[in-house]
Amino acid sequence: MEKLKKYASVKDEDQFYHQGAVELLVFNFLLILTILTIWLFKKHRFRFLHETGGAMVYGLVMGLLIRYATKASNVENGTVYECEKLESGPSTLLLNITNQVYEYQYKREISHHNINGHQGNAMLQKMTFDPSIFFNILLPPIIFHAGYSLKKRHFFRNLGSILTYAFLGTAISCIVIGLIMYGFVKAMVHIGQLKAWEFHFTDCLFFGSLMSATDPVTVLAIFHELHVDTDLYTLLFGESVLNDAVAIVLTYSISIYSPKENPNAFDAAAFFQSVGNFLGIFAGSFAMGSSYAVVTALISFMATFQHLTKFTKLCEFPMLETGLFFLLSWSAFLSAEAAGLTGIVAVLFCGVTQAHYTYNNLSSDSRMRTKELFEFMNFLAENVIFCYMGLALFTFQNHIFNPLFIFGAFVAVFIARACNIYPLSFLLNMARKQKIPRNFQHMMMFSGLRGAIAFALAIRDTGSQPKQMMFTTALLIVFFTVWVFGGGTTPMLTWLQIRVGVDPDEDLKGQAASQSPPKLDKNTTKAESAWLFRVWYAFDHRYLKPILTHAGPPLTTTLPEWCNPVARLLTSPSAYGDQLKNEDTSYIINNDELSENYESSAHTLGPKQERTGCTQATGKEDICEGDLGLGTYELQLEHTSCQHQLNSVA
Amino acid sequence: MEKLKKYASVKDEDQFYHQGAVELLVFNFLLILTILTIWLFKKHRFRFLHETGGAMVYGLVMGLLIRYATKASNVENGTVYECEKLESGPSTLLLNITNQVYEYQYKREISHHNINGHQGNAMLQKMTFDPSIFFNILLPPIIFHAGYSLKKRHFFRNLGSILTYAFLGTAISCIVIGLIMYGFVKAMVHIGQLKAWEFHFTDCLFFGSLMSATDPVTVLAIFHELHVDTDLYTLLFGESVLNDAVAIVLTYSISIYSPKENPNAFDAAAFFQSVGNFLGIFAGSFAMGSSYAVVTALISFMATFQHLTKFTKLCEFPMLETGLFFLLSWSAFLSAEAAGLTGIVAVLFCGVTQAHYTYNNLSSDSRMRTKELFEFMNFLAENVIFCYMGLALFTFQNHIFNPLFIFGAFVAVFIARACNIYPLSFLLNMARKQKIPRNFQHMMMFSGLRGAIAFALAIRDTGSQPKQMMFTTALLIVFFTVWVFGGGTTPMLTWLQIRVGVDPDEDLKGQAASQSPPKLDKNTTKAESAWLFRVWYAFDHRYLKPILTHAGPPLTTTLPEWCNPVARLLTSPSAYGDQLKNEDTSYIINNDELSENYESSAHTLGPKQERTGCTQATGKEDICEGDLGLGTYELQLEHTSCQHQLNSVA
Repeated sequence: MEKLKKYASVKDEDQFYHQGAVELLVFNFLLILTILTIWLFKKHRFRFLHETGGAMVYGLVMGLLIRYATKASNVENGTVYECEKLESGPSTLLLNITNQVYEYQYKREISHHNINGHQGNAMLQKMTFDPSIFFNILLPPIIFHAGYSLKKRHFFRNLGSILTYAFLGTAISCIVIGLIMYGFVKAMVHIGQLKAWEFHFTDCLFFGSLMSATDPVTVLAIFHELHVDTDLYTLLFGESVLNDAVAIVLTYSISIYSPKENPNAFDAAAFFQSVGNFLGIFAGSFAMGSSYAVVTALISFMATFQHLTKFTKLCEFPMLETGLFFLLSWSAFLSAEAAGLTGIVAVLFCGVTQAHYTYNNLSSDSRMRTKELFEFMNFLAENVIFCYMGLALFTFQNHIFNPLFIFGAFVAVFIARACNIYPLSFLLNMARKQKIPRNFQHMMMFSGLRGAIAFALAIRDTGSQPKQMMFTTALLIVFFTVWVFGGGTTPMLTWLQIRVGVDPDEDLKGQAASQSPPKLDKNTTKAESAWLFRVWYAFDHRYLKPILTHAGPPLTTTLPEWCNPVARLLTSPSAYGDQLKNEDTSYIINNDELSENYESSAHTLGPKQERTGCTQATGKEDICEGDLGLGTYELQLEHTSCQHQLNSVA
Repeated sequence: MEKLKKYASVKDEDQFYHQGAVELLVFNFLLILTILTIWLFKKHRFRFLHETGGAMVYGLVMGLLIRYATKASNVENGTVYECEKLESGPSTLLLNITNQVYEYQYKREISHHNINGHQGNAMLQKMTFDPSIFFNILLPPIIFHAGYSLKKRHFFRNLGSILTYAFLGTAISCIVIGLIMYGFVKAMVHIGQLKAWEFHFTDCLFFGSLMSATDPVTVLAIFHELHVDTDLYTLLFGESVLNDAVAIVLTYSISIYSPKENPNAFDAAAFFQSVGNFLGIFAGSFAMGSSYAVVTALISFMATFQHLTKFTKLCEFPMLETGLFFLLSWSAFLSAEAAGLTGIVAVLFCGVTQAHYTYNNLSSDSRMRTKELFEFMNFLAENVIFCYMGLALFTFQNHIFNPLFIFGAFVAVFIARACNIYPLSFLLNMARKQKIPRNFQHMMMFSGLRGAIAFALAIRDTGSQPKQMMFTTALLIVFFTVWVFGGGTTPMLTWLQIRVGVDPDEDLKGQAASQSPPKLDKNTTKAESAWLFRVWYAFDHRYLKPILTHAGPPLTTTLPEWCNPVARLLTSPSAYGDQLKNEDTSYIINNDELSENYESSAHTLGPKQERTGCTQATGKEDICEGDLGLGTYELQLEHTSCQHQLNSVA
């Protein structure tokens, strides 16, 4: 008997392992299908359905199969046991059942109305994985990759507009959606579909904030493929990247907004506390992310810095370098989460900072490795999320389809997008030298897709009925926007007569070659980035770059005289070679061209770089490699300033 | 009130997310420390402590900190609740506590004696992660990498010996450990430390099988660095790779061995059933792994095969190729698990087969990417496991330190290793032309380290007291062998006068250059690999290679006449170029040299290959690239046969 029980227990355990395997296998299978489909699409140039849309379709079909082809295997379907001895739910529960103690782990709180028959279907349950997996595992690589691959040059040229859309626009969108939804909720209460105490104005704002996270991954992929106008691309990309961060922090701030008395009344103290929370969390996460990146940059800088340390050059071991880079970047995320900040925001700015400093210190082999690694992780994570969204429609067991709420949400989302783009574009155009044309505005309006972040925020809490209604609605909006708007991108581009096939480096190259004063870029930079950006740029160029990388002028020239001993110690020997840069205009042009050639070849066929050994900074070469493939904004700026010097001399 | 509760619930949830982050952060921190240490070690050439040993030390220190610096946070310490209504533990439990329904998930069965105060320390609990993570996430990349990076040429030269050590040796080791431990267990029962019914002979055998998985990762790393004699390296590497697979299947077979009546008596039927299980599971897993690899090879072959398919070449999208490769290999693991087989065995043979066929079809970019990806995953996973082993000594809460059992296990492990190596070497030497010298045998005896697999097998089931005793003992043996034997490798090599600084390709190159008949390799191949290997080789060379890759002779020449239409369709156009190979000896020599140069440069500075575009088979180039970096055994074989033809002509 005892033996038999042991046998059964081993069996059970194995059953358990195999179930985990089946679950993962389903995802693997979906991903393989998606990859094969992408391959097929690449040939036949189907542009009406992007790979992420395809992944969602496969997920949907698989969800349908799992839902209706597997049957509830567990006997204990939805039986609720009473427990009088406990006051609250402990995280771990030890239960004595027929003289055998079992350990149970707290999973979640369930509303009474959710206890239905499907609760016991083990397969469905397994397929609905923990939302924390989204936040801790799947989102970080996507967001980091966005930050790491940001084209700094174009990004900074449009910094003002991007920040306006991301911060002001998201806030507008959140409030507009919140207000419209509150109207619909009132109507629903009026016709008796909802009880008044179930849905507060803060809940509507919560929904508004989570639906404000746009994710035009589909649109951007098509833009990238078609080489759509760089400014439009940058505006959209920059907006969507920062807007995710803003929406996440906003959602969190709203979720902890807790007025003392009536939850529907406006409580000024609580409101300002929420605003304070928002600013604090955003700034804290930003600081956390950047400081991890600075630490990475310092380590990698020290590692190539022979006269200070006695260590072997780290770049001789690209694996260690890659590992360190990967782990420190992930730690930025985890530390922010552990400190009660927002990891996603931290990892975004960590990515941007890593690209700006650390990338310059890496060996060419590690540059390639990190890029490929994050590209690959981004690719997998993105497709997993979209597959999962498809799956969730059928495997999630507590959907609440409320037609009025769904209709309201669709209306609200589009009105909010319009209230975000058109008024802000109008305001921005008053300040911008290079206006944002009408067709760009329409395209941005059209590209307000919702995706991974909205989904992840919605699935984070599905405990109560309103939250479930929100989740269902968010899911449907994601489906609709990804399929309809994502699929309609190419026709829309044609209809709006937006130019495609633009070389992203064309305008800069054009300036460099023709020696004519830049048409609009410099002015735009001046007009938009204003003094803040220029102060930052000067500080970065004079102090941070020389301390953290091999680029920039030697510290001995930028720091005050009395700092010389320290400066001499900290300056990379190669930095002295940099002084040439400011005198030698033609050299800079060559540099620019070099990097552009590099970039375009990287786009078409994959990098041609030789992948051997270290690129320990050796004067000129280093500077030109410094920004390869990740924007050469500094060079361009210097270049134009040099041109002006030349012009004035002439 | 309602608002307050909601607030508290959100807070709790966030607490939960942040805890997951802290847990991961601890591992990240340990890994970062390990990497920095490795970097330091690389410079100072500390050979007495390998990186994995270092990772274990850090884990140990961190475990100590977590254990004694954090305090039990949970109020519900070890309180067991009675539940009369349930018959057995359901996988999901719904509990009604103060009118709120909570969902609990089944975690494990606990013995009564384990319910102690530490049970409630949330931090310790979080750090003790699910054993299924080992099996589903951490082990597969390590094992796959071992298979993928197997040097086929050297491996096949010693195939007979490796198989003998792996199969026969592991069985001997398992039985010897089982018998000795049974003696000790009897003694413990005699002095009253153990009750007779707690520990059966099958439990001793179970312990024997899990302790038979050797993991000389430390030794092999040092061997690789010092370029120790290739045959010794291959024998050890091959043995350890296959031995893991054998030990895992053996452990599983023993755990499901269930004699009908008295568990101590020998039940012939049950025994043969176990043997049958072993063979069935091993063969099934082998088939599963290989067939996934063959599917991958076929897809990647089709993808470069323009006259059959109308698709774009897959190799133009190295990311898709890498993704497909990665997912299909992981699916091999998961499918085997899902089918009740052993995923580890499947993924091992999948790796070997991928390296043999698929690798040849990949674009050069994807070859690099897959290699780097798996290398990186292997590196991370290995260090995570060793950190975790260090952690487990203090964070695992149910250790049972039994001095007699531990002493017995140490004795048993060493005697079993001796009974494995010396008698089998003696037997093998009777058949081998190239004997395994005494000092090699001593070194193999010394390299019987226990590592990740033994640990993973032991932690898989720690429910009962004997299992906990086994786990504790296994952990101590891992510590001891990794630190003492791993650290003593270099002195031992000197003491045993084993030659170091050997170029792995020297002997083969020597033969090729001097045109003299091979000293011992050919004979060895003949003597050991015997007919089985040669039949396999001929079949592989004639049919499989041409169907699955661009290498090998065209099918039109190897298949019977009547198959010609099919053969013509299936043959890669480049294969016709291959026919040259058999006539052109000098060309083959060049090939061999080329690949050797490639290999050695890859070892020192990282591959120099240009990473552009596709390597769609174009006659000669393809053949020589076909096996770059992954052994050129075929070429060598052909080469020697050509030499013989030449010699006989002369």
